[in-house]
Amino acid sequence: MNAPSRIITLTTDFGTSDAYVGIMKGVILGINPGVQVVDLTHAIPPQDIHEAAFTIYSAYRYFPKNAIHTIVVDPGVGTHRQAIVCEIEDTFFVCPDNGVLSYVLQDIGNNTAFPMNAVAIQNASYFLPEISDTFHGRDIFAPVAAHLSLGVPLTNIGPSVQDLVEFPILTPQVSKNRIIGQIIKLDRFGNAITNISERTLTEAASAYDIRVADTRLTRLNRAYAESTVGEPLAIIGSLGVLEIAINGGSAEVGLGLKWGDVVEIQWSD
Amino acid sequence: MNAPSRIITLTTDFGTSDAYVGIMKGVILGINPGVQVVDLTHAIPPQDIHEAAFTIYSAYRYFPKNAIHTIVVDPGVGTHRQAIVCEIEDTFFVCPDNGVLSYVLQDIGNNTAFPMNAVAIQNASYFLPEISDTFHGRDIFAPVAAHLSLGVPLTNIGPSVQDLVEFPILTPQVSKNRIIGQIIKLDRFGNAITNISERTLTEAASAYDIRVADTRLTRLNRAYAESTVGEPLAIIGSLGVLEIAINGGSAEVGLGLKWGDVVEIQWSD
Amino acid sequence: MNAPSRIITLTTDFGTSDAYVGIMKGVILGINPGVQVVDLTHAIPPQDIHEAAFTIYSAYRYFPKNAIHTIVVDPGVGTHRQAIVCEIEDTFFVCPDNGVLSYVLQDIGNNTAFPMNAVAIQNASYFLPEISDTFHGRDIFAPVAAHLSLGVPLTNIGPSVQDLVEFPILTPQVSKNRIIGQIIKLDRFGNAITNISERTLTEAASAYDIRVADTRLTRLNRAYAESTVGEPLAIIGSLGVLEIAINGGSAEVGLGLKWGDVVEIQWSD
Repeated sequence: MNAPSRIITLTTDFGTSDAYVGIMKGVILGINPGVQVVDLTHAIPPQDIHEAAFTIYSAYRYFPKNAIHTIVVDPGVGTHRQAIVCEIEDTFFVCPDNGVLSYVLQDIGNNTAFPMNAVAIQNASYFLPEISDTFHGRDIFAPVAAHLSLGVPLTNIGPSVQDLVEFPILTPQVSKNRIIGQIIKLDRFGNAITNISERTLTEAASAYDIRVADTRLTRLNRAYAESTVGEPLAIIGSLGVLEIAINGGSAEVGLGLKWGDVVEIQWSD
Repeated sequence: MNAPSRIITLTTDFGTSDAYVGIMKGVILGINPGVQVVDLTHAIPPQDIHEAAFTIYSAYRYFPKNAIHTIVVDPGVGTHRQAIVCEIEDTFFVCPDNGVLSYVLQDIGNNTAFPMNAVAIQNASYFLPEISDTFHGRDIFAPVAAHLSLGVPLTNIGPSVQDLVEFPILTPQVSKNRIIGQIIKLDRFGNAITNISERTLTEAASAYDIRVADTRLTRLNRAYAESTVGEPLAIIGSLGVLEIAINGGSAEVGLGLKWGDVVEIQWSD
Repeated sequence: MNAPSRIITLTTDFGTSDAYVGIMKGVILGINPGVQVVDLTHAIPPQDIHEAAFTIYSAYRYFPKNAIHTIVVDPGVGTHRQAIVCEIEDTFFVCPDNGVLSYVLQDIGNNTAFPMNAVAIQNASYFLPEISDTFHGRDIFAPVAAHLSLGVPLTNIGPSVQDLVEFPILTPQVSKNRIIGQIIKLDRFGNAITNISERTLTEAASAYDIRVADTRLTRLNRAYAESTVGEPLAIIGSLGVLEIAINGGSAEVGLGLKWGDVVEIQWSD
């Protein structure tokens, strides 16, 4: 038996205008009435595996040991794509094997020698009795997560899987006097989150020339409010990476930024 | 005493931009700190009793015994419309008597000899001390649901009610070689959910000619991803009824579908 | 030790499309796995301190004793604005000291001789180990609220603060035969909530001449549905103040109302 978990999180593209998310919670609480179910978000754009992958990556480190993260962004539902449970450093992920763990796997692979343990979800005794072709969130992922939260061991869920599907992650090019990175997420405030880490930057220099779209910035803020309202700024955000923002406004709208836009940083020695 | 319930669900048209839903949860947890409150949705279009009725019907079967479903879509708040608690097969519904249980009552009425037991909510000792004219969700429905979750018997809530308000449900016309049904729900993905059940269809034939708006389909998919991205398709959805969808897109937008649209299915013997 | 609380509420401008809110819940449940976390709303317009102040004011009275209300609408994050915990009548507020408690402080100040007790959040042993410059909701407010819910006394959090930041509240002018008030909130239904209390009105007269924008109303409804659908109306809403509404529609849209609009009421003796 695994140590029982008190927390199951949900990340989906179901939205909150239908009852789909509530139905998953009904299934979970019917199996484990004592578990806490936490929504990460249900506003992943339909079928957007990349956004789901970024979301779970940004959040999983802040949950206690044995948390179970259920991610249902699943364009291949009903086809032969595999459903998996993946355990990494006492954290569990229940999801389709379609790349939604790409950022998490890269993050952990870069930082630790981790004992990753994944199984294919195959034991139907942990599913609902009837399995639809279109809503495995309700029929498979929710009940499997709930049984895991009761301590069911991974080996009971299905056979081991070695290679998980990963999509290529945008990584910055770092050369002597220059970093070329990308915007990998635009958040609700219109902040543009890049893939350029604080570590990379602070190892590099202390004065910068930052260019993104038509905007040029020359310093790193410590707070949004250090700049005048309406002014663009660069700041190390809460994920420890460079963000482009506008104090009191949206960099996405104000600077016309979008996913994948190049952020180029130069400095002198 | 009823067996205490650990779950209260909420279905409202309150949205989530004001604190109305949080206030109901404060009232509930003040009365029963141990209950789990689950949101089905708060995005029912204002006063849309039909959409609320469909939502609770789609969800209630997936909750454990003794769940209490609270539905507050209540255009008649403050008038003489009755507030009721309705118990059906160990499931409780707390709501205005305005038709929000129409689908549930039809569903159960069609399938079982059920012992339906309904009372009018009249015993003010289960209400908040002050009752507003406009927010019975906070002042009446939330505290009554919370007291029910502690095991208060229905007979304490108020007198028996025999006939509940039901609106007429769209039901398909089935003839020898033809079914004429309707679209009764469009979900967040733009999937068009019909009132044509899998049972009706599979009893009929195995090859179909399905027409909806200007679209003609000739087979049932087993998965969205069986069709090319952008292609319309017919599939038995997670509610066990025919859905019209577009793989990777919205049938609502792409095919111009709307609530009430006719779906006509023909076949040869 | 304070009496432990079972409830932490969250009011933010984070939206629900990113994982920010879920991350705060992960931090809270990692510290106190037994607490209930309740969302008031996360749809406060970005940096809108006034709307946040109104939201918490409309809700806090409906939560049980010892509830902890966490409000993170924080344009000054990372600057020298103070973070505070404020205890009033066995209710706790954890928030930046930027005016988000203005309505609560006015409400309580008007009604009771309250023992208000506030401290600056300074003891970093209750924070996450690493503090970002941009997400104190995750790094400071969430963990401090969680520790409070375990019973940590205010004196452990930081030193006493005497004067909290308050913004001026719009208050109606009441003269012999006239009240001039304002619209202070427009809700999801398009109802326009004013700062004119039922008490002020009913002390004044029983017949009124109510003018707002180009609309004139002459009576107070007891229910929305007392008016024909589409008709504007005046009603005492669930907060005990005058609201302007349209039965089955939106007064905001239909009458063109906006925040701050004057509502003028006259009567004869």
